[in-house]
Amino acid sequence: MFLRDHWYVAALSSELESKPLSRQILGEHVALFRSESGEVVALADRCPHRGYPLSLGTVVGEQLVCGYHGFTFDCSGTCVAVPGQDRIPSRADVRSYPVVQQGLWVWIWMGRGEADVAKLPSTPWLVDTKNWSAVGGVAKIDAAFDLLVDNLADLSHETFLHNGSIGTPEVATTPIEVEIDEDANVVRVYRHMNSVDCPPFYSRTTGLEGKVDRWQDIEYSPPGFYLLHARIAPVGQPPLPDGTDDHAFHMKILYGLTPSSDGKVYDFWALARDFCVGDDETDRFLEKMQTSVVQEDVDALNILQMRANGTTESSEVSIKIDRGGIAARRMLASMRESVSSK
Amino acid sequence: MFLRDHWYVAALSSELESKPLSRQILGEHVALFRSESGEVVALADRCPHRGYPLSLGTVVGEQLVCGYHGFTFDCSGTCVAVPGQDRIPSRADVRSYPVVQQGLWVWIWMGRGEADVAKLPSTPWLVDTKNWSAVGGVAKIDAAFDLLVDNLADLSHETFLHNGSIGTPEVATTPIEVEIDEDANVVRVYRHMNSVDCPPFYSRTTGLEGKVDRWQDIEYSPPGFYLLHARIAPVGQPPLPDGTDDHAFHMKILYGLTPSSDGKVYDFWALARDFCVGDDETDRFLEKMQTSVVQEDVDALNILQMRANGTTESSEVSIKIDRGGIAARRMLASMRESVSSK
Amino acid sequence: MFLRDHWYVAALSSELESKPLSRQILGEHVALFRSESGEVVALADRCPHRGYPLSLGTVVGEQLVCGYHGFTFDCSGTCVAVPGQDRIPSRADVRSYPVVQQGLWVWIWMGRGEADVAKLPSTPWLVDTKNWSAVGGVAKIDAAFDLLVDNLADLSHETFLHNGSIGTPEVATTPIEVEIDEDANVVRVYRHMNSVDCPPFYSRTTGLEGKVDRWQDIEYSPPGFYLLHARIAPVGQPPLPDGTDDHAFHMKILYGLTPSSDGKVYDFWALARDFCVGDDETDRFLEKMQTSVVQEDVDALNILQMRANGTTESSEVSIKIDRGGIAARRMLASMRESVSSK
Repeated sequence: MFLRDHWYVAALSSELESKPLSRQILGEHVALFRSESGEVVALADRCPHRGYPLSLGTVVGEQLVCGYHGFTFDCSGTCVAVPGQDRIPSRADVRSYPVVQQGLWVWIWMGRGEADVAKLPSTPWLVDTKNWSAVGGVAKIDAAFDLLVDNLADLSHETFLHNGSIGTPEVATTPIEVEIDEDANVVRVYRHMNSVDCPPFYSRTTGLEGKVDRWQDIEYSPPGFYLLHARIAPVGQPPLPDGTDDHAFHMKILYGLTPSSDGKVYDFWALARDFCVGDDETDRFLEKMQTSVVQEDVDALNILQMRANGTTESSEVSIKIDRGGIAARRMLASMRESVSSK
Repeated sequence: MFLRDHWYVAALSSELESKPLSRQILGEHVALFRSESGEVVALADRCPHRGYPLSLGTVVGEQLVCGYHGFTFDCSGTCVAVPGQDRIPSRADVRSYPVVQQGLWVWIWMGRGEADVAKLPSTPWLVDTKNWSAVGGVAKIDAAFDLLVDNLADLSHETFLHNGSIGTPEVATTPIEVEIDEDANVVRVYRHMNSVDCPPFYSRTTGLEGKVDRWQDIEYSPPGFYLLHARIAPVGQPPLPDGTDDHAFHMKILYGLTPSSDGKVYDFWALARDFCVGDDETDRFLEKMQTSVVQEDVDALNILQMRANGTTESSEVSIKIDRGGIAARRMLASMRESVSSK
Repeated sequence: MFLRDHWYVAALSSELESKPLSRQILGEHVALFRSESGEVVALADRCPHRGYPLSLGTVVGEQLVCGYHGFTFDCSGTCVAVPGQDRIPSRADVRSYPVVQQGLWVWIWMGRGEADVAKLPSTPWLVDTKNWSAVGGVAKIDAAFDLLVDNLADLSHETFLHNGSIGTPEVATTPIEVEIDEDANVVRVYRHMNSVDCPPFYSRTTGLEGKVDRWQDIEYSPPGFYLLHARIAPVGQPPLPDGTDDHAFHMKILYGLTPSSDGKVYDFWALARDFCVGDDETDRFLEKMQTSVVQEDVDALNILQMRANGTTESSEVSIKIDRGGIAARRMLASMRESVSSK
């Protein structure tokens, strides 16, 4: 069961051009495109005539023309032309979805009612290009949504699955603190590793060598938005009481978790940093490293799902590192329950 | 449900050699081959011994030897030898299907009783090589049979799906006339486009430039035979009252629609023309163009089916261009009903 | 239904290294590896923490570390470490399977109770490297276990499916003798071809030209072990009454038939010979020939299964050559019945 009344990342901004993009989100096929005037548009990806995907059509100015028989729609989904006759049948309109571009991500509102703008996650680091530089990407995972939540909620897996890039022994051994904010609908997981080796991912970009303080503070806002505040600093120089933290390097690691269909999920990511701002080489290095890290997760989750499909065995043995993931599961379960009891 | 008591195109004549061809037709696996003497043979493609496909066997003279243990059959399907013993078990024969070669197509009778030769479609243009030249091919489509019927019954899709080859704006805008002949079991769709641009498909082969009269007269004989009379002529020179039509170029565009299994269909095609007869270059040009046109249909129908598989949504909005397709659907439905009520 | 209380071939010895191997055997995922000290180990291939395959982990000394979050197991399957805490949860152990290496094959006991060593097939020809040289391999077949039994129990298919390597006309035409030993749980099939052409498989390795005596004596011990005693000798020189058979060349052709999951089976094979012992070139020749023979069987069984999946038609016409296969089927059926009635 999908949680519909939420914003989800639908696409990278760079993916949207005049050639439409087809995405299945929460089980619904959506055609995403940019009109000639630059408007970002999301329409139901099914022509009401004979069901052909509108995403295979052609954008002409501010309209989308179906590639099979030419039914034509404006950016609001209203049918404005059909072949062979002037009269346009009622019932020929298609649904349009509210969409918002915020920096390198495009968000979509999947609820049936009006979009709730207050629920749109705030991602200033993707917008404030003066102080932050960001790179992003997307991977598709053939696994249940909850397996991706599990994966992100417990970073101790970095030590084993991402050894050599972001994983060091201390990630797995350092105890975590978990905070569940029912009111804000957020699960927070803190892991402060002090005086530890700086992994290649950060040493190369920050220039820090040897030991560092490395903090990982997770904020997961179910269902679809995950934010990791990463802080790398010289040993023993915590932020000042007023929050000033000039010695440290900060990275915001954002994930947009977007259910596609049952057992398939889009894994959008973005890395924003407050150092080497505007530096292309750092962009390319981080993009390459993160693409490879994400692929390691994709491979692991795909195989977990494949194994799950072939068995009824689902027992688990949970330990302390799992408290964040278990809290996230509970929050998701309660959200689903509250929807289904409506 | 398949309509069995009909002839269907089973193969291109050129596909039949001594090496057997395996085709699944109306859900039945059929081994097709040409014996040493040239006879075209169709046998049930399952050895009665252990179920191995006979199409993987070897033709020796007028017999087919199974590739697993050597059970051997003559062209009528009678088992004439088994390994390790002289006695041939009763029950070891396989079904043979009536087949008829007509020019570049081989037809098969899929009914249980005797073949009804009166039902065999007449395709003189594939046989009379003095006055007509023909090319042909086959594609396999992973889509329901009825989606292919829809596609062929409404040619307004040429404008959008086959733009640049046979599609011009006028195909979609010119009104059609539909004629339903219940007695002859034929749906006819006429589209006469006068003084319109000649598409590349025809301008290159006829030599006509600029405006032409372009007529498309469809005769669909459900379930498996579709015939399009295409007429390209200088503007304002219709056929004479006695039928003489010397100024015009004629092309017969034939489709053999052969259900393979549920959700799979063979799309046989042939193009016969009464101009450039015997010209190899025209053959090659038309073969290449039509292969590409058919592939556009295949891609569209495959994706329509994929989408249909993943949804329960099947609503449609029909308009005037759909009258031919709807008539065809009705005729098919009534034929199926009359079979299932037997 | 699988027959569990038996030994099955799990791997070639050469496949087992420190990098674990994943195999699904009788429906169970098993991680196989060789520890640093050389011990051959088989553990259930599912980490009790979150279900990740242990076969994707890393062998460190005598332990296997899970590749997702680092749960660590010794060679008996006992969990000896987990990340982030010292206390190891009870219930975190995994099942270990009894395994035995015999020459180039590793056997696994799939029963739930203690391994019955008396049931372990004896394969001296794979162990006595002074008098025998052996090569081996494995193929995976997407077919029901019983189709592979059928295939091996009736070698008359060599004439047709393996023509040109081991198949000659006489294999199909020579009558067989079948012996069913209910006490020893063995089906024996004898085919003694006297004064027949020597197929390339043997002529090249034995040096014998022209006519030979070629004997094929099968011993199938259901479910998982098949042994073919092949004897190639100059014409008219049978073994002496005391068993001495110095003129003959002997090959033991062993198959380990290991059900993987429903409709999938591992086809392990080994060829041991008492001639050209220690000769690398003969090894390579036989390995190449047999790999190709096995692939012909794999292709045939895969297609048989594909055809079987798409139909309800399962009738068979059995003849004399099928007596061995039918006896094997009966013995398997009776073993399955006796298990399910427990």
